[in-house]
Amino acid sequence: MTDYDLVIIGAGPAGLTAGLYAARARMNVLLIEKAVPGGQILITDWIENYPGFPEGISGFDLAEKMKQHALDLGLEIETAEVHSLNLTAETKEIVLKNKTIKAKALIIASGASPRKLGIGEDKYMGKGLSFCATCDGPFFKDKTVVAVGGGDTAVQESIFLTKFAKKVYLVHRRDELRATKILQERAFANEKIEFVWDTVATGLEGFFGIEGVNVKNVKTDAVSTIKADGCFIWVGILPNTEFLNKTLKTDDGGFIMADAHMETSVPGVYAVGDVRNTPLRQVATAVGDGAVAAVSAEHYIESL
Amino acid sequence: MTDYDLVIIGAGPAGLTAGLYAARARMNVLLIEKAVPGGQILITDWIENYPGFPEGISGFDLAEKMKQHALDLGLEIETAEVHSLNLTAETKEIVLKNKTIKAKALIIASGASPRKLGIGEDKYMGKGLSFCATCDGPFFKDKTVVAVGGGDTAVQESIFLTKFAKKVYLVHRRDELRATKILQERAFANEKIEFVWDTVATGLEGFFGIEGVNVKNVKTDAVSTIKADGCFIWVGILPNTEFLNKTLKTDDGGFIMADAHMETSVPGVYAVGDVRNTPLRQVATAVGDGAVAAVSAEHYIESL
Repeated sequence: MTDYDLVIIGAGPAGLTAGLYAARARMNVLLIEKAVPGGQILITDWIENYPGFPEGISGFDLAEKMKQHALDLGLEIETAEVHSLNLTAETKEIVLKNKTIKAKALIIASGASPRKLGIGEDKYMGKGLSFCATCDGPFFKDKTVVAVGGGDTAVQESIFLTKFAKKVYLVHRRDELRATKILQERAFANEKIEFVWDTVATGLEGFFGIEGVNVKNVKTDAVSTIKADGCFIWVGILPNTEFLNKTLKTDDGGFIMADAHMETSVPGVYAVGDVRNTPLRQVATAVGDGAVAAVSAEHYIESL
Repeated sequence: MTDYDLVIIGAGPAGLTAGLYAARARMNVLLIEKAVPGGQILITDWIENYPGFPEGISGFDLAEKMKQHALDLGLEIETAEVHSLNLTAETKEIVLKNKTIKAKALIIASGASPRKLGIGEDKYMGKGLSFCATCDGPFFKDKTVVAVGGGDTAVQESIFLTKFAKKVYLVHRRDELRATKILQERAFANEKIEFVWDTVATGLEGFFGIEGVNVKNVKTDAVSTIKADGCFIWVGILPNTEFLNKTLKTDDGGFIMADAHMETSVPGVYAVGDVRNTPLRQVATAVGDGAVAAVSAEHYIESL
């Protein structure tokens, strides 16, 4: 006996879409989310590339709409953290703190988290160190901040930071950005942003909070300290797969391998969105993943 | 020399999303559409499973929003029909009626079209025969119609037809529907819909227009005629690939094969949305495909 036909782990755009499709298909489905539904878009200031919103939409509003959409179609959402999985038998076991849930199929949509540099992020968290401009940008009104990274997130969020900060140093280890051209153009045109090329952040300093960011030029090995009141780090993401414990095949980065049906190395278990080994991590791709996985899971359960 | 970095064929959700991403990435991109932008969602009455629109949205409105979204970001759209492709050289040639366009990369988003039964559809087109309830449903106010099919489209559109028709016979060759459970429930609860199981449509009759639909029970071989003023056929789709001329690998159904990066058997040529050999054909999956292909094309062009 199972508790549910389908359990979905994670309520970002991928998980909510899977839930929306599963609920609409009248499956007996539970979505488990450890925090607030929305996933990483909750910490995204503005989303202008999700098709259907020509004026753009805030990450918070889009998360709300997606959550409401799934709830309206009857999706059940439980707040809990997944401790581990037992996927050795046909019935999938999802182990929470106080109970174990049994399901016929499982969709993992647990997303990804910002990568740390190991320069004392934990010590300075909430004391000037942040991974989220939307969350913490307003604390830096008329202050100076250092941003680290060169991809879409680093550039987009640095631009956002200039709404508050008087100066943003964008520290990047290479001599050109990886970010989309339109974002590069905007950043180059923004006179509050100063680019610090060929440079890595090596440490944080300050007594009560951040007062400076130690940096090193990778070409000259010259070290220096940029005086700043805050530091934002956007150097990539890591999959949220602590609970996996090697039950599923992953790539070298730990992202879960899945086929065109979103099925993982274990039949009846699917991976969608940022946690998947996917060529692109966007809201648009997450919703596609979620829809495919829900329908794949439905077909799998029907075939049992 | 090429005319464009990237040419996209087809302005449904997949093509428009690819265009949106490419324009936002400041690529030199042209989207070619033979008719009105929107694709098959233009003939979809109501879309309630595209994440972000909890109240649902009409296909027409969603098409408008997606088109406007892409135009706002600078996408150039040309109205023309693609005659053929020349993909033998690195530069891709897209042959139109009056000119040939050269591009570094190509995204095919030409979609799919309703499959015909070959029971005289062409003769009765516009005379009672239709593939689109949104388009033609209002012509059947207080009349009797036959709908053929058993999938999502057939059931959803039959329900829509009951807004106008006094009676809808839903003819299906099997004894159960393929459609999503929630749609089945709604159809079974709709007293204007009568199910005709194990039955296929074999012909149309009528002098000025449809007066009856000939059917045959596949279990008993009994033939009969359902008196009706119209007939809607929803028995699957065929890829819109007349211009392909075997330049790309397809599956048995003619849908274009593509990998996780949406790349086809020819480097620099991508296939997205309904025309692709995909496990699911939805707006949610089309936008994911489009985003992936645009970024893949961008990387491909950078690597040339």
